[in-house]
Amino acid sequence: MKQLLSAILLCALSLTASAQFGPARQQQDLPGKPSLWNIRGRQYPRVLPDSRVIFRIQAPNAQKVQIDLGKRYDMQKGEDGVWTCTTDPQTEGFHYYFLYIDGVQVADPNSESFYGCSMMSSGLEIPYDASKADRFAFKDVPHGDVHRKRYFSHVDNAWKTMYVYTPPMYDQEKGDYPVLYLQHGGGEDERGWNQQGLTDIILDNLIAEGKAVPMIIAMLDGNTRDFTAELTQEGIPFVEKNFRAKKGMENRGLAGLSMGGIHTLNTLIARPDLVSYVGIFSSGWFKNNGGPGAADSDKNYGVLREKKDIYNKNIKKMWLSMGGQEDIAYENCKEMRRRFDEIGIKYDYYEYPGGHTWPVWRESIYQFAQMIFK
Amino acid sequence: MKQLLSAILLCALSLTASAQFGPARQQQDLPGKPSLWNIRGRQYPRVLPDSRVIFRIQAPNAQKVQIDLGKRYDMQKGEDGVWTCTTDPQTEGFHYYFLYIDGVQVADPNSESFYGCSMMSSGLEIPYDASKADRFAFKDVPHGDVHRKRYFSHVDNAWKTMYVYTPPMYDQEKGDYPVLYLQHGGGEDERGWNQQGLTDIILDNLIAEGKAVPMIIAMLDGNTRDFTAELTQEGIPFVEKNFRAKKGMENRGLAGLSMGGIHTLNTLIARPDLVSYVGIFSSGWFKNNGGPGAADSDKNYGVLREKKDIYNKNIKKMWLSMGGQEDIAYENCKEMRRRFDEIGIKYDYYEYPGGHTWPVWRESIYQFAQMIFK
Repeated sequence: MKQLLSAILLCALSLTASAQFGPARQQQDLPGKPSLWNIRGRQYPRVLPDSRVIFRIQAPNAQKVQIDLGKRYDMQKGEDGVWTCTTDPQTEGFHYYFLYIDGVQVADPNSESFYGCSMMSSGLEIPYDASKADRFAFKDVPHGDVHRKRYFSHVDNAWKTMYVYTPPMYDQEKGDYPVLYLQHGGGEDERGWNQQGLTDIILDNLIAEGKAVPMIIAMLDGNTRDFTAELTQEGIPFVEKNFRAKKGMENRGLAGLSMGGIHTLNTLIARPDLVSYVGIFSSGWFKNNGGPGAADSDKNYGVLREKKDIYNKNIKKMWLSMGGQEDIAYENCKEMRRRFDEIGIKYDYYEYPGGHTWPVWRESIYQFAQMIFK
Repeated sequence: MKQLLSAILLCALSLTASAQFGPARQQQDLPGKPSLWNIRGRQYPRVLPDSRVIFRIQAPNAQKVQIDLGKRYDMQKGEDGVWTCTTDPQTEGFHYYFLYIDGVQVADPNSESFYGCSMMSSGLEIPYDASKADRFAFKDVPHGDVHRKRYFSHVDNAWKTMYVYTPPMYDQEKGDYPVLYLQHGGGEDERGWNQQGLTDIILDNLIAEGKAVPMIIAMLDGNTRDFTAELTQEGIPFVEKNFRAKKGMENRGLAGLSMGGIHTLNTLIARPDLVSYVGIFSSGWFKNNGGPGAADSDKNYGVLREKKDIYNKNIKKMWLSMGGQEDIAYENCKEMRRRFDEIGIKYDYYEYPGGHTWPVWRESIYQFAQMIFK
């Protein structure tokens, strides 16, 4: 009884304090604003106007507390047992982060969690500047739908999940739509583009402005024994059976970030006739330097050389994006571009500063979605 | 380059170790089996055949580590810096749990996270015994769809999310379906029934067996200024506009657990003509003992008394379930039943041991879904 009462009162209190209900309820005396991904009612982390971030956590009995945002920040303990720190300015968009409590890497209880880095990570959102905010904003435009579909994969011998975005008007209209298959990176899964990536929001906004063709986007789990088999034997047949999907390679795209880019490239090698639109974000086959995968890279370039004319005919757009020189995949991609140039494979290349991070991948889908199925 | 290599290798290693790909890859030398909600590849927590659970966490620099499963368990530190504990036997189904590291409550990095207890919690799944496992299993039956829908709530002046389950064949058939509005508890949100509750799986299995009528289930965020307004001004109009929903009270149900049960009851008071099927799980108005809400309870019973005949005519099924006497809402519900009896409000009552927990609420939706729209 007392517990139930407490639970309900706690909930009511948390609602009162919540930033969900607009500026009137925000705590105006605190610096900056709560991050978009804070748990409802949690005031920290807070993003300052110059994009530095204040973190705060109560841990009177801990000996050492750190924030890991790629760079680790030691937090300072106050007399009240509350640890705080203020970071350097962060780049705009989504960032994974972690808390280290006496050396144990955990998600921050102040944040929503996202599957990334092979565990449930915390997420920080730095607001975009005025020139870009509109792309990623929840706006009063027609909204599509994201379907969670469960299916049994015979490739992996397991029940799996895919997310499928259908565009606004999909339910009202009767036509068929082209399909982009969009893959996450290593340590992520089918949730990546759907949550961290804000894919539905980006597409809804692009479609509303007439900048992208209405399309279906299927987000599969790339953690599989054999991605090409999973895509061609399970993913594509499932989508084409359960959604009004246009068929044929000219109505299919395949794109992926990091590991998903490698999956995309490997699928191209196995199936030159599968898709006409290809996006490789922050990725590239391993550089031929004797490291793992180098022999495969050479074999792959051999296939491209042998079937160059088929690839250049089938692929209407091959688009490579990179998070600048600070992207850990930069050298791999640079070498791949050199080999593409040498062989004569056509592609476009785009750089956007930010490294190997989600802001770059959101920008990538924003750009790529405007180029395909046209 | 090295980092990318490491990330991909790490991912490959994690896949190799993963329990996702069937028994062949499981570590057969460890006791018990990994919990269903472990992050892919994580071997702990492990559930023993007698439903005790072994937890394990590496924390060489921590001074005190505990597991909180309702009861707190002190973990023991080994010489390798790994802390372990083995719990008492747990009841079957889903349980929230937390890790305390030197006093800080966090989610266990070994587990998926679920929004509950007003933060991202860890989840533990104890396998059901043979008589019930079938209800909650991923099976080769036709599967429905869960839609994530974003909408702007004028009640809360904010973008919100609802999840909407549509039954198998919804896309193939042209008919309309009845709608159950199904609400989470305090400290949870629209994700509760969709994730912890396995609602789509339960319904898919019931519908396949012909035990439940194919229905739409809408799961709204009950963290709102005014639930009745949110439901009637936003939720119902949105669902009836965007889905093939049958209209009229005889085609609508409303059910909720704990706080969601209170929301359901309060909506009944405001709108006796809204729904014909009512489920109240682990809930009840506050007992009239001078505590908060007592005056409202008396007022509510007054309305029921005044409109008794209308309620008994409009409501085809009023179903109360309770997690036994150990449920923290037991006394509230007992008093409510006494008042219903006294007034002459018709209802059915069902007890299922387990307390104020998700196993009870999964059982509740399993039972309730079979009674409605028939």
